[in-house]
Amino acid sequence: MKPLKIGLVQQSCVKNTTENIKKSCQKICQAAAQGAELVVLPELHSSHYFCQTEDITNFNLAERIPGKTTQRFSELAKKLGIVLVISLFEKRAAGLYHNTAIVLEKDGSIAGTYRKMHVPDDPGYHEKFYFTPGDLGFNPINTSVGKLGILICWDQWYPEAARMMALAGAEIIIYPTAIGYDPRDDVLEQQRQLSAWMTVQQGHAIANGLPIISVNRIGFETDPSQTTPGIDFWGSSFVAGPQGEILGQASAKEEELLSVDIDLNQSEKVRQIWPFFRDRRIDQYQELLKRFRD
Amino acid sequence: MKPLKIGLVQQSCVKNTTENIKKSCQKICQAAAQGAELVVLPELHSSHYFCQTEDITNFNLAERIPGKTTQRFSELAKKLGIVLVISLFEKRAAGLYHNTAIVLEKDGSIAGTYRKMHVPDDPGYHEKFYFTPGDLGFNPINTSVGKLGILICWDQWYPEAARMMALAGAEIIIYPTAIGYDPRDDVLEQQRQLSAWMTVQQGHAIANGLPIISVNRIGFETDPSQTTPGIDFWGSSFVAGPQGEILGQASAKEEELLSVDIDLNQSEKVRQIWPFFRDRRIDQYQELLKRFRD
Repeated sequence: MKPLKIGLVQQSCVKNTTENIKKSCQKICQAAAQGAELVVLPELHSSHYFCQTEDITNFNLAERIPGKTTQRFSELAKKLGIVLVISLFEKRAAGLYHNTAIVLEKDGSIAGTYRKMHVPDDPGYHEKFYFTPGDLGFNPINTSVGKLGILICWDQWYPEAARMMALAGAEIIIYPTAIGYDPRDDVLEQQRQLSAWMTVQQGHAIANGLPIISVNRIGFETDPSQTTPGIDFWGSSFVAGPQGEILGQASAKEEELLSVDIDLNQSEKVRQIWPFFRDRRIDQYQELLKRFRD
Repeated sequence: MKPLKIGLVQQSCVKNTTENIKKSCQKICQAAAQGAELVVLPELHSSHYFCQTEDITNFNLAERIPGKTTQRFSELAKKLGIVLVISLFEKRAAGLYHNTAIVLEKDGSIAGTYRKMHVPDDPGYHEKFYFTPGDLGFNPINTSVGKLGILICWDQWYPEAARMMALAGAEIIIYPTAIGYDPRDDVLEQQRQLSAWMTVQQGHAIANGLPIISVNRIGFETDPSQTTPGIDFWGSSFVAGPQGEILGQASAKEEELLSVDIDLNQSEKVRQIWPFFRDRRIDQYQELLKRFRD
């Protein structure tokens, strides 16, 4: 099996969705021109990260799947003959919305969707207001470039999510994400957060013996409510191999189209020297299904 | 709550168990003299790492709990007024053995034991021959310095183990361990392995918002069967805080008594900014109890 070339589109977003989509499309074309067969965009790449405030007018940003945006990107995936992972604010019904990733196949069809399962709510990240937690479970999506375990942002902190995908045969785990610094934090805290964010995801790669791809947005976005000083999205999109080794990483300051080759044969080799799946104590994990063991 | 001072005894071991125990006792006394209230020894510190070969005469190394070794260390814990984590080859019955850690309280009593739940078996690490997988579950041990989630070596690769301990209220996760390089691996592979070993454990600290302590043996031990070129135990014992940040780390080449302060107040602060426990999708984790989702 030859290496799989992946394009990570680390982009900044503005208020105007047309401009964001235009930029994404340009970057995707560039990635394909560089030979990428799989291209991944960051979380909610069509708009500003609107969850900084709770504002019902933002529900107007949501759209159906399939819909205008999936149509646009489907055509592009087909034209370029690539597998494309996009993310959008899904309108499932009036008053019912999800944070959803869509995988588009080389022929432009929808290979599958994933609805963000773990939904955060923190100052500056009011996602529980906008998104109902996903109900599609943790199921990898079959594509022509492999079985893709799509997870989204906050999911990246949960070993359970990565494990569920790996147990279902995911060959790569992919995290579109939108995470950044709080400008009020000091530099050391900011470094700890960025480092923790990378480390926990590398840990999932190691524990499951598979590569992971994490694509973050970049740039500063103000809080329209002025409650917080905004978010400085920290970019640093990266790919890690099945031992957690960093195969490529983008800047923490700039937009970037990162191109990385993944050798999918490597996972099986690593799983043979570190056969973690052999020894899981499934007879003793029942209480993982509890909120707390008290 | 004032910081907790911890002593990590990164030691090499020889064939003669009396010498190993003597060295451990000296190091423990030194740690206590430096103010450590909690001292941790590496895995199976009383003997060579005998699992390099399958040899029934090694069953003679096993002993009862309580027994001679626990007695010796109990007296020391009492004399020094410290909590002490030791590790030994437990003889539970004729033909029934475990790889067990024992926590000794400041008054010399046994606070609790943990029997290694995930047992490896790889060239050079024939543990399935010697040890029956633990049947005490993943239960933290209450002590005067906090609730300790004791896990052992191979357990460190399993997010489930750390999560089970954290859900049961563990305040610190502690890994006595014995892991090293295969001299046949090239330097890059050795670096990837050491880095993966650290990263996956730091990941557990992050995912669970608590500090972890990992104490490894050091030094080269030959394979008596000469089937493999032996194990070069890589030391590098470390303590990580609840954001995975390294609070202290020992050498990869030398014996070392590492002293590290842990601020146990930090965990709650981190869990408030990153409330991962709030959002676990316990309604969707059932298949974590499966061997594989096929």
